[in-house]
Amino acid sequence: MKIQNTHYRTIWRDAQSVCIIDQTQLPFALVIERLSTYKQMCEAIRTMQVRGAPLIGAAAAYGVTLGIQQHADDQTVHKVASELIATRPTAVNLAWAVQRITQKLLLLPVSERAQAAWEFAQTIADEDVEQNHAIGQHGKLLIAEIAAKDSTRVINILTHCNAGWLATVDGGTALAPIYAAHDAGLSVHVWVDETRPRNQGASLTAWELAKHGVPHTVISDNAGGHLMQHGQVDMVIVGADRVTGNGDVCNKIGTYLKALAAYDQQVPFYAAVPTPTIDWQLAQGADIEIEMRDADEVAYMLGQDQHGELCRIRIMPHESKALNPAFDVTPARLVTGIITERGVFRPEQLQSLAT
Amino acid sequence: MKIQNTHYRTIWRDAQSVCIIDQTQLPFALVIERLSTYKQMCEAIRTMQVRGAPLIGAAAAYGVTLGIQQHADDQTVHKVASELIATRPTAVNLAWAVQRITQKLLLLPVSERAQAAWEFAQTIADEDVEQNHAIGQHGKLLIAEIAAKDSTRVINILTHCNAGWLATVDGGTALAPIYAAHDAGLSVHVWVDETRPRNQGASLTAWELAKHGVPHTVISDNAGGHLMQHGQVDMVIVGADRVTGNGDVCNKIGTYLKALAAYDQQVPFYAAVPTPTIDWQLAQGADIEIEMRDADEVAYMLGQDQHGELCRIRIMPHESKALNPAFDVTPARLVTGIITERGVFRPEQLQSLAT
Repeated sequence: MKIQNTHYRTIWRDAQSVCIIDQTQLPFALVIERLSTYKQMCEAIRTMQVRGAPLIGAAAAYGVTLGIQQHADDQTVHKVASELIATRPTAVNLAWAVQRITQKLLLLPVSERAQAAWEFAQTIADEDVEQNHAIGQHGKLLIAEIAAKDSTRVINILTHCNAGWLATVDGGTALAPIYAAHDAGLSVHVWVDETRPRNQGASLTAWELAKHGVPHTVISDNAGGHLMQHGQVDMVIVGADRVTGNGDVCNKIGTYLKALAAYDQQVPFYAAVPTPTIDWQLAQGADIEIEMRDADEVAYMLGQDQHGELCRIRIMPHESKALNPAFDVTPARLVTGIITERGVFRPEQLQSLAT
Repeated sequence: MKIQNTHYRTIWRDAQSVCIIDQTQLPFALVIERLSTYKQMCEAIRTMQVRGAPLIGAAAAYGVTLGIQQHADDQTVHKVASELIATRPTAVNLAWAVQRITQKLLLLPVSERAQAAWEFAQTIADEDVEQNHAIGQHGKLLIAEIAAKDSTRVINILTHCNAGWLATVDGGTALAPIYAAHDAGLSVHVWVDETRPRNQGASLTAWELAKHGVPHTVISDNAGGHLMQHGQVDMVIVGADRVTGNGDVCNKIGTYLKALAAYDQQVPFYAAVPTPTIDWQLAQGADIEIEMRDADEVAYMLGQDQHGELCRIRIMPHESKALNPAFDVTPARLVTGIITERGVFRPEQLQSLAT
């Protein structure tokens, strides 16, 4: 997508390095970081300089590539792969991408692996872009259906966290249908959940929608239910870090609460994911290990002070502690459909994709 | 309640002035402010230096008192009363307290009003303290019932916003049962919703629980549903700015989402309110006017920087806008009971209190 008329991906090869947009600096500064070692990539994933399920899949594939440039023996490949997988336990795309590239590499002679890895990683990145384009086209039809009922009306779509192009290599997942609808001339407006504690909605989703010119309004995570009660939300589209075979959706903490409100108010609730995000190994969401992140993410907030400098402030008493579960599971019974690159499926239809 | 072994109310008379704890300075500084005019009281209510339904009722009564010390003719009484009522449109206690004190004043000779107002305001404050004590005793029994099932277990109670002693003259509403249970030796732990956008949970509830020694953990507003899914919440107790005759609960934005999750996970959901918070004029919550507050409350956060100074930071792009509805309505069908000073009532039983 574009930033000030220049097209960017979130990650790209540059000679023997990989460049990323440092997402911890957004929305106030656009900082490109150059990574030359897989350890740097592990750190970038762990500290969420790159984040979003599809993007960290591609990032991990580039990480494997960086990690085997000097030595590409089997032991090194396995060591690099396992360190990358351990950076974010909940993300199925990450493990999927790492396993995919390592399996391919291990079939090759050691001497050919360093070069081939660049191609494999590029393929994973390109496929993500293609998948997201297809998700956008399928999801756009859902928005167009609502618009068809009353062409004079703005379609209000609520999203949680950031599943935009910043969460992918390009194009976005949850935001792909919104960009597609907007670009096709449909009148859309996005309610952006700020998405505490890391505020990916307020900092990333708002930023990328603003850069693309999509009308949007930031709300506290508490406000969505009220807006649904008052007919201000036509549909909810979220991304997902993992979807299980039965259609349970594991996504950013708080998604379950929005799904409950949508169900209660008869607002359609969709998760938009590329099919690799569907984990066929797990029967249900309750089996997913939920990542507990640092409590300081709740206790401190990062933002821009009056001098324009990034400033970290404490927002609770020093003597109080915090807990920070990063994801929750929305049961399939609350999910209207899963938007994938292969079409839109009701949760109970998902199994047809397993083969 | 106590702060470092000294007993405080949140508001008290001192000679011809009224003292308040400036709650916008908490949790990092305890600042007492002295108010000498009703205009200052209007400003203190509007800027939420005093906040919480019961406290702003008492504050408004003291505000009327300050406003009629020089001139106490009918016209002045009405003018002062209407300005105070206009400061926070959603708060029924405020209008109730102002109307109560003005009705009494208007029955008196003008010359007696200035002195009598102090007594009337003191009575309103004292009654709040008594009511909250009774709410605590009734609510404690609900906690004790859960504890009786397994005496070895900690009882986990989730609360949203601040309905503690800081929201009242003393004792609290939603926290009154928790303080009563804790003081009676029951093992309670409180999940404190941070309560965006103004963070009353993280800043006020956490602070007062810490000062009283009640175990607690701050969570993002997004986390409560996940905790309920995993059996980590035994009950929810919230306050309310207004309860309608049918048992709909108007409380801080986001309460509805927690009530949905509690209902979905079969966790008991209670609102604790003194009966003056019940608005018999309104048949249902949908009739309540919801206050829209300044969008900057969503766009900026206040906290303590690394030098210990209060610092305000922007947390979303400058080109994005925000919306800030301050309250939502939880329908009675999601409410297990209303804890009042006269006992605990199911929503459909509330009408028995109307007479």
